[in-house]
Amino acid sequence: MFKDLDELKKKYTNIRRFNEDQFINLQPIQRGGVLTPEAQKALMEWGDGYSLCDNCLKGDISLIENPPVKDFMVDFRKFLRVDDVLFTESCRRSKQIAMAVLKEKFHDTNRNIILLDSNAHYSTFLAAEWNGLDVREVPKTGYPEFKVELEKYSEKIDEIEDETGDLPLAALLTHVDYAYGNYNDASIVSKICQKKGVPFILNGAYTVGTLNINTNEIGADFITGSGHKSMSSSGPMGILGFKKDYETIIKKRSNLKGDLTGKTFGIKMCYMLGCPGVYGAPLMTLMASFPSLVERTQPDKAKEEGEKAEYFIQKAEKVEGIKMLGTRPKIYPLINLETPGFKKISETHPRKGFFLREDFKKEGIIGMAPGISKKLEISTYGLTWEQVYYVTDTFLKIARKNGMKIEN
Amino acid sequence: MFKDLDELKKKYTNIRRFNEDQFINLQPIQRGGVLTPEAQKALMEWGDGYSLCDNCLKGDISLIENPPVKDFMVDFRKFLRVDDVLFTESCRRSKQIAMAVLKEKFHDTNRNIILLDSNAHYSTFLAAEWNGLDVREVPKTGYPEFKVELEKYSEKIDEIEDETGDLPLAALLTHVDYAYGNYNDASIVSKICQKKGVPFILNGAYTVGTLNINTNEIGADFITGSGHKSMSSSGPMGILGFKKDYETIIKKRSNLKGDLTGKTFGIKMCYMLGCPGVYGAPLMTLMASFPSLVERTQPDKAKEEGEKAEYFIQKAEKVEGIKMLGTRPKIYPLINLETPGFKKISETHPRKGFFLREDFKKEGIIGMAPGISKKLEISTYGLTWEQVYYVTDTFLKIARKNGMKIEN
Repeated sequence: MFKDLDELKKKYTNIRRFNEDQFINLQPIQRGGVLTPEAQKALMEWGDGYSLCDNCLKGDISLIENPPVKDFMVDFRKFLRVDDVLFTESCRRSKQIAMAVLKEKFHDTNRNIILLDSNAHYSTFLAAEWNGLDVREVPKTGYPEFKVELEKYSEKIDEIEDETGDLPLAALLTHVDYAYGNYNDASIVSKICQKKGVPFILNGAYTVGTLNINTNEIGADFITGSGHKSMSSSGPMGILGFKKDYETIIKKRSNLKGDLTGKTFGIKMCYMLGCPGVYGAPLMTLMASFPSLVERTQPDKAKEEGEKAEYFIQKAEKVEGIKMLGTRPKIYPLINLETPGFKKISETHPRKGFFLREDFKKEGIIGMAPGISKKLEISTYGLTWEQVYYVTDTFLKIARKNGMKIEN
Repeated sequence: MFKDLDELKKKYTNIRRFNEDQFINLQPIQRGGVLTPEAQKALMEWGDGYSLCDNCLKGDISLIENPPVKDFMVDFRKFLRVDDVLFTESCRRSKQIAMAVLKEKFHDTNRNIILLDSNAHYSTFLAAEWNGLDVREVPKTGYPEFKVELEKYSEKIDEIEDETGDLPLAALLTHVDYAYGNYNDASIVSKICQKKGVPFILNGAYTVGTLNINTNEIGADFITGSGHKSMSSSGPMGILGFKKDYETIIKKRSNLKGDLTGKTFGIKMCYMLGCPGVYGAPLMTLMASFPSLVERTQPDKAKEEGEKAEYFIQKAEKVEGIKMLGTRPKIYPLINLETPGFKKISETHPRKGFFLREDFKKEGIIGMAPGISKKLEISTYGLTWEQVYYVTDTFLKIARKNGMKIEN
């Protein structure tokens, strides 16, 4: 099959992540997921896929008392201030499951549209598509803010009802979006949804684990989060928080029976496919990072992340033509800058749009999208102030080096 | 929210896996998943959840050339000798997706039963249940072999057709089952399925990565495998191999469009929910272990694993009342022994059925089901001969210590 095993070994057994040891990685999807030292340790300890299963006494890993998974379920609910929580493989799985649960709840209606904010992530579309749902978008303002018009959830719900004769199956809001890092006040949408009788899903992919969230106060029916995006957990790891009202459906147990053996699996949850497979490194790293999450989501700490972003943005905007897209002030430090000056340089640069990424890499900074120079999408989440200063200075240095004017 | 952060830190940040450093773990679901040294290294290097995304140029991680993910897709196909392969979060997800794909293919029929062997895993039931399918079982022989009667797939297909007027949606065979470790000759079922026009799913949770498998020669439509169960990969990690015929459906791309933004995500695969989230530690550890998998699945090497199991079983059966359940000779070393003598001891033992697990633990061996003494389900997969001798000697020592008679 493979003639040369040495060749295979050379190819696959020693792949280093970076060529050098230390880079500052500004990729927006990664900053909130960077493992804490505690998670790094847990990763080494619990790396085998089924490592937690050694400790499973009842066929349901969430019942394990040592290590304290059972306690952790309680602590995590408390952290999110939500009635109940389940762990999944990812935020997109959580969305897929939330939608499937709602489909089951409303199976005797024709509610098959989901209302999304117009900054929704692709995985929200795919979760809807898997469930055979159609989507409608709530408008956003145009350049430069691209702000979702939250109040318009109301009229869009009415429009869908007028058009189809049915309410939408659900409304979903992206708490902080991937494109502009805009933070949305979820309680506005939640109130509209409650008034209209539409279940509300809050996609907290960036916010669960980075911002202080009180789900019950917001009033969301479901909240979804990502361990590897915003909870310093090794992936894939997701969470699905939900109101008690949905418990019966979401936790429904297997009901199939083997016709010959009579086998049933009454302890296994259907929507989780039993145990969802995160019960090794992903969950144990999440648990190890949990005290850090509690700490970093305290309002003062969380606020400082916005301030770091603001520091960088204000300096960056002194460069000619550079302008931040999205809403101010930054609550979450995912930053989108339009950089027409870099774009212009790329038109004659031998490395085209790649020069920008390459210039940063030379200075020890990575995470910029490849080949793109007309905008810069980065996140400063979790950087120390020293790193923020370094990133800012480097940005200005690269701008200067490439002949761009900088205001004093 | 949490008054005492130190308390939280104490609880979650330093959870050791075992109290001591070295145990031989015989838990059947874990032996094939134990990380290779190469995978351990990859785990530390690529532990952040989105670590591979740094290298993604085209929005589809399977296209990454450095590290060689794109090559790996080709090498893995070659390894499994299957037309095409996709990575998922687990074997159960692969089964769920295979069934969903078949439902889509046969959506204009009433084929809604899946035919399973009567040793099928619970996750096979749950995958069927998610898809709204009913199950029927192919019989097995009774005590002591519990051997699936493979030829009976034929008459069961006929029965289903007679009963419902439709063929089953698919037939599934568990290549090696979780209860007895019985190995089934998949080509027998495949031939029947081809003749009857029923798609065939081979569940290789234990076998992909431990046995030499030629999927195309077998003729399976789908083959599912588990990285953390049998491919020395950190979890969750699954594979789904399939015949070219299913490519159009299984790889269909997102087709939803935002009504206001016009957003579409034509590169993202619907059934994968885009990128399935294994593209950090799980995939990188699988790649790092891959040369080992190629090596260990060579027929001679794989055969030796059966021989190790046989060595243990033959010695163990010298203890009064102990008898192996399942078929001989062992092809895969998942072992089920009935141990009526231990059961009898447990009836008067202060630690009840737990004494057995505890006796083994004192000798540095773990992985026995808690509280169960009437049978012993273990796997010797991947143990060195020295470890096999030690496990065997310890087993005999514990039997002797507990007053059981041992033949010379």
